[in-house]
Amino acid sequence: MIISALLTAVGLNLLFTVLLFALYSILRKQPGNLSIYVPRLLASDGGTQTRAHFNIDNILPSVGWVRAAWQPSEEDLLASSGLDGVVFMRIFVFCLRVFSVAGILGILVLVPVNYLGDQLNNIDFSDLPNKSIDLFSISNVDDGSNRLWFHFSAAYVITAFVCYLLYNEYRYLSTKRLAHFMTSKPMPHHFTILVRGIPVRGGASISSTVERFFMDYYPSTYLSHVVVRQTSKLRHLINDAENAYRRLTHLKSIPRATQNGGSSAGTGGFLGLFRKKDPVILYTKKLEDLEENVRLHQSEVNMAGEEIPAAFVCFKSRFGAASCINMPQSDNPTEWVTEPAPEPRDVYWPFFSTSFMQRWISKFIVFVASIFLIIIFLLVAAFIQGLTYLEQLEIWLPFLKNILEIAVVSQLITGYLPSLLLHLLSSQIPPLMKLFSTMQGFIANSDIEKSACGKMLWFTIWSVFFANVLTGSVTSELQIFLDPKNIPAMLAVVVPGQASFFIAYVVTSWTSVSSELTQTMALLSHIFSCPCSRKESNGKINVPSISYHSEIPRILLFSLLGLTYFILAPIILPFILVYFCIGYIIYRNQLLFVYTPKYDTGGRFWPIVHNTTIFSLVLMHIILIGIFGLKKLPLASSLILPLPILTLLFNEYCNKRFLPVFRAYSAEALIKKDREGENNPEMTDFYEKLVTAYHDPALMPLRRSFTSNDRHSPLLS
Amino acid sequence: MIISALLTAVGLNLLFTVLLFALYSILRKQPGNLSIYVPRLLASDGGTQTRAHFNIDNILPSVGWVRAAWQPSEEDLLASSGLDGVVFMRIFVFCLRVFSVAGILGILVLVPVNYLGDQLNNIDFSDLPNKSIDLFSISNVDDGSNRLWFHFSAAYVITAFVCYLLYNEYRYLSTKRLAHFMTSKPMPHHFTILVRGIPVRGGASISSTVERFFMDYYPSTYLSHVVVRQTSKLRHLINDAENAYRRLTHLKSIPRATQNGGSSAGTGGFLGLFRKKDPVILYTKKLEDLEENVRLHQSEVNMAGEEIPAAFVCFKSRFGAASCINMPQSDNPTEWVTEPAPEPRDVYWPFFSTSFMQRWISKFIVFVASIFLIIIFLLVAAFIQGLTYLEQLEIWLPFLKNILEIAVVSQLITGYLPSLLLHLLSSQIPPLMKLFSTMQGFIANSDIEKSACGKMLWFTIWSVFFANVLTGSVTSELQIFLDPKNIPAMLAVVVPGQASFFIAYVVTSWTSVSSELTQTMALLSHIFSCPCSRKESNGKINVPSISYHSEIPRILLFSLLGLTYFILAPIILPFILVYFCIGYIIYRNQLLFVYTPKYDTGGRFWPIVHNTTIFSLVLMHIILIGIFGLKKLPLASSLILPLPILTLLFNEYCNKRFLPVFRAYSAEALIKKDREGENNPEMTDFYEKLVTAYHDPALMPLRRSFTSNDRHSPLLS
Repeated sequence: MIISALLTAVGLNLLFTVLLFALYSILRKQPGNLSIYVPRLLASDGGTQTRAHFNIDNILPSVGWVRAAWQPSEEDLLASSGLDGVVFMRIFVFCLRVFSVAGILGILVLVPVNYLGDQLNNIDFSDLPNKSIDLFSISNVDDGSNRLWFHFSAAYVITAFVCYLLYNEYRYLSTKRLAHFMTSKPMPHHFTILVRGIPVRGGASISSTVERFFMDYYPSTYLSHVVVRQTSKLRHLINDAENAYRRLTHLKSIPRATQNGGSSAGTGGFLGLFRKKDPVILYTKKLEDLEENVRLHQSEVNMAGEEIPAAFVCFKSRFGAASCINMPQSDNPTEWVTEPAPEPRDVYWPFFSTSFMQRWISKFIVFVASIFLIIIFLLVAAFIQGLTYLEQLEIWLPFLKNILEIAVVSQLITGYLPSLLLHLLSSQIPPLMKLFSTMQGFIANSDIEKSACGKMLWFTIWSVFFANVLTGSVTSELQIFLDPKNIPAMLAVVVPGQASFFIAYVVTSWTSVSSELTQTMALLSHIFSCPCSRKESNGKINVPSISYHSEIPRILLFSLLGLTYFILAPIILPFILVYFCIGYIIYRNQLLFVYTPKYDTGGRFWPIVHNTTIFSLVLMHIILIGIFGLKKLPLASSLILPLPILTLLFNEYCNKRFLPVFRAYSAEALIKKDREGENNPEMTDFYEKLVTAYHDPALMPLRRSFTSNDRHSPLLS
Repeated sequence: MIISALLTAVGLNLLFTVLLFALYSILRKQPGNLSIYVPRLLASDGGTQTRAHFNIDNILPSVGWVRAAWQPSEEDLLASSGLDGVVFMRIFVFCLRVFSVAGILGILVLVPVNYLGDQLNNIDFSDLPNKSIDLFSISNVDDGSNRLWFHFSAAYVITAFVCYLLYNEYRYLSTKRLAHFMTSKPMPHHFTILVRGIPVRGGASISSTVERFFMDYYPSTYLSHVVVRQTSKLRHLINDAENAYRRLTHLKSIPRATQNGGSSAGTGGFLGLFRKKDPVILYTKKLEDLEENVRLHQSEVNMAGEEIPAAFVCFKSRFGAASCINMPQSDNPTEWVTEPAPEPRDVYWPFFSTSFMQRWISKFIVFVASIFLIIIFLLVAAFIQGLTYLEQLEIWLPFLKNILEIAVVSQLITGYLPSLLLHLLSSQIPPLMKLFSTMQGFIANSDIEKSACGKMLWFTIWSVFFANVLTGSVTSELQIFLDPKNIPAMLAVVVPGQASFFIAYVVTSWTSVSSELTQTMALLSHIFSCPCSRKESNGKINVPSISYHSEIPRILLFSLLGLTYFILAPIILPFILVYFCIGYIIYRNQLLFVYTPKYDTGGRFWPIVHNTTIFSLVLMHIILIGIFGLKKLPLASSLILPLPILTLLFNEYCNKRFLPVFRAYSAEALIKKDREGENNPEMTDFYEKLVTAYHDPALMPLRRSFTSNDRHSPLLS
């Protein structure tokens, strides 16, 4: 890519980004859009926002929202988005710190050093716009030049700095996590464990087996239990009722005349054969039947429903519950399997029906399916990547030849189109990965998202980083990994070659992260008030939640790009810094005003971030080993070797020192917390609530009927 | 190797083995050798065996000892050698079962199929002795022949059979382990945990910190604690005293006249310059000084010795101790680290002085050192392996040419010498590996041996199997593993080529395993009554213990050889069967009469055996994939693929199902056991003993002085 093409891309994307910002600031001020842009405020107000009178300010772009997103402190964020929200924002803070220092080092030291090289024979300051940006990359440094020691030192400096930050961040967040626990109110999931694989012998019911077991072995701390029941059939019924209800609401919201007209035009009038009844009455009847059916089934399940060998067991103290989790309960390790219970709102009920064996097999299938998905995506990405090579495109699609010869078009296509396509395509993957994780049989939504996050990370690294790096230069991607000795040399050849693509990729991502702000899909569905709109017609707001499993890998990809290209093509760093700045302010805004947390894992996403950063560092080192080899500086190549080893040892230490904090709370903390609550009169209240905290929502009574005159209640209490 | 050479080797080794058996049966009957061959009986008798009168039977070989070793039941073995002894013998039983079936399959099906092949163009039944034994191996089957499906089916059959046996064995041993625990008397290590990383704040002593912590958090179950003290200096002193004592005993046992003569000849007479004092008096004086010093130091350490931040904490119940192990105690995971305490006799005291960081670093160093050791050994083995190629030897050492042309010598050298050298050389490795493991900072001897066992396994597999397979054909061994795709094809080429070497190796091992019976080293040192002799002069027997870390890997190597060569060269199987038969009877004898258990891990060596067998199976599958590829039967090659996957899934399942039993006892078992003891009046007695069970032997009072007139007491009570 030549410099003018890069500037075109930067200009275009800056323009788009600014436009999106302006658009957002205007749209946000429209009272009708409040449910899209500040659903949290609206929800906490109970939807009482009144329609403001017209104001000229409302149609002028402003930056007030940036201040509103900037000002709240971390405590405010913690209060509004939980520890997970704080951890999410810490990723940006961490990356901003890393890339500020890396950027200064890169632009002030490495770029001049690279530019003064002679390898690409181009020391000629005239005609800068038509120069390749490769002049600023390590490719331009002469083979065997002593200037490469600058790059060598930069690698050591940045690794030390990143490790220092990683250590601090891990320590900070583990303290935060503990403090969060110590100041928390009594929470049901701290007192509860989930028991699976309950063995039933001699015709006893599961409930009585559980009771006998825990009364026998934990008489002093056992409180109560809830056996999970088979509700998949019931869930289908409720789903049907919900759909019917939604359809009915939609029909009612359309004025009667239009309805009749529509229906007569659609069925009665057009075919002229049938005289249909009023659809509202039809659906009301159908809904009534469904509701009756649901109620019948619920009482049936409650009375004598099929029990699943799984139960939530509540204890009188946090310590009691925890000590039960950490010990094998039965001589047969597949029976009485205990694990921490998720938060009640976090439980994923449908998956209790699967057995140990089923979960085990589906885990294997999901593993294979994920690999296949990545491979299929790689094939598609290979095609898209071909677009950066105009000549190839002209061969494939000869009729485009004339158009492609126009300068703007060709720059657009090489600099913009491939990355836009990639962005679009990869946005379809997270739901698929989440589906895969769901099939693995986790019992908490947070676990599903954590697992999906890991899958997405692998997917992103493979399909975006490796696929582009490898298909751009060699035909077969997997070939390289069958020859591990040559990996560094191979990567050293191909990775720098893709610098321009990734710079373009980073630049386009400014627009895509800004479109997060405008919530295009939600806005469109709001405007056309389709039935799945976020705002329900009674003013109740359906506040969305952020999907960490798709956002975190996307952000981490940029830190991977930044770290791997820091030495090779430091010119990428300012663009990455801009990305993180935009992202920081946008996601703060979204977390504060748009998304509400669906669960709180207490910051358990951080270890994923930590490990990925370590991976990025080691990948950088491996590429450097190859680069110094290629550049005929074998001494530097060998002297880099201790760096990955030290980094991995550092990682090992961090995992020993901090990871256990993210896995379980210590006896010390639990006992202290229990003692605090001992003299608290509120605890009796809490215990009463605890007994009923874990209930399958499918078994909750329909508090208000769908068909009662109060039309717009949520389905379940 | 031609058949006649094989027969020579078999004949020679059978002869040696029978000779050794006969020698043993005679030697064992000599009353003077009782301390070598039945030290356990002697020790339990208190050494009161009287010298029997001369009997002609005593100098005739007999087989009575075989009956004596054969008859005792598994319960007897359990009583005399603990569960570890039972597990050790189960390895033989397991291997005998596997290789009986494999042998029948191999000899009755595969050998005829191989022999009827035409690949080596040698269907000619005359002159059998000069045929290569390759005629019986898979190399002789024609390329693409449908007969290869016999081999294919045999692979599936044997894998299924081995997995079935593995499952049964794992289940049997885990039940056995639980039963052993349920019937055991109260043992100190079930009630005790080891706490490390005790943080000391504000000048408090470690002892009071521990007491405060456990009194605070575990008031109902905490019983007492023992803080470990720094005793390395004291240990040196005791060592010196011991050496002096041993020297003194030796001097006293030599008649005074010889002593004087010796000393005058040695120092006084020979040089004629000094008139030395009586050495006995000299040493007695020195010993007295040392003892005084030890006593002084002991009281010093006991009063105000440096405390190490580690303590044994005793609980009132097994459940109390176990629940404390399984939970992180402190918010900082590197503080208050708890782990199960080893048996008191199993504690390895010297290593308490090392810190967390030291242990971590030494672990890393040991890892690197082990790899270096393997590589160095590989270089040496490469040289030895060269001996099987006579031509090469003649080039290296031309003066041997005439000797090498003698048929017997050449057969001896190709068939016998290399494997003998390998046996000798590798016998030096286990102590080295144990030393490495010791440096890693385990606090139990059993852990050290378990870790050394793992190291030895890797060592054995690499240095004996891979080194011989790869150096025999290619120069660089590691090259192959840098090209993973070609591993099956590569192994398929080189592994069958080494069949003759491994057959010879198995055959020579008969002699080496029989020499275990005669305890050559112990016998020699007994005859020359050197000071390190097993029998101390007062008749107290120093009963040795078996070193599982060197024996188990050696046995598992033969099962690895058997499984990998089962398809390739089934002719190896009868020889392996003979090995296991000899081994079974010999090790039973040794466990019952010679070795006494130093500790009991409750069968924790079995998972190592299980995993190694799985490894052997998968290695067999990988080689088969290559073989079928080479033999131009790609369909079979692909159809073998599910086999390693299924095997690994089976392993995964077994580890889920049985491994936890070998790690910790369940709450169920612990509570049941605790309740059993509740009404037992013996428990108060036990608690009293428990408080003092964990004491550094270096701090035990010298119950009887070395220099008191009672001369031959053991050093420490």
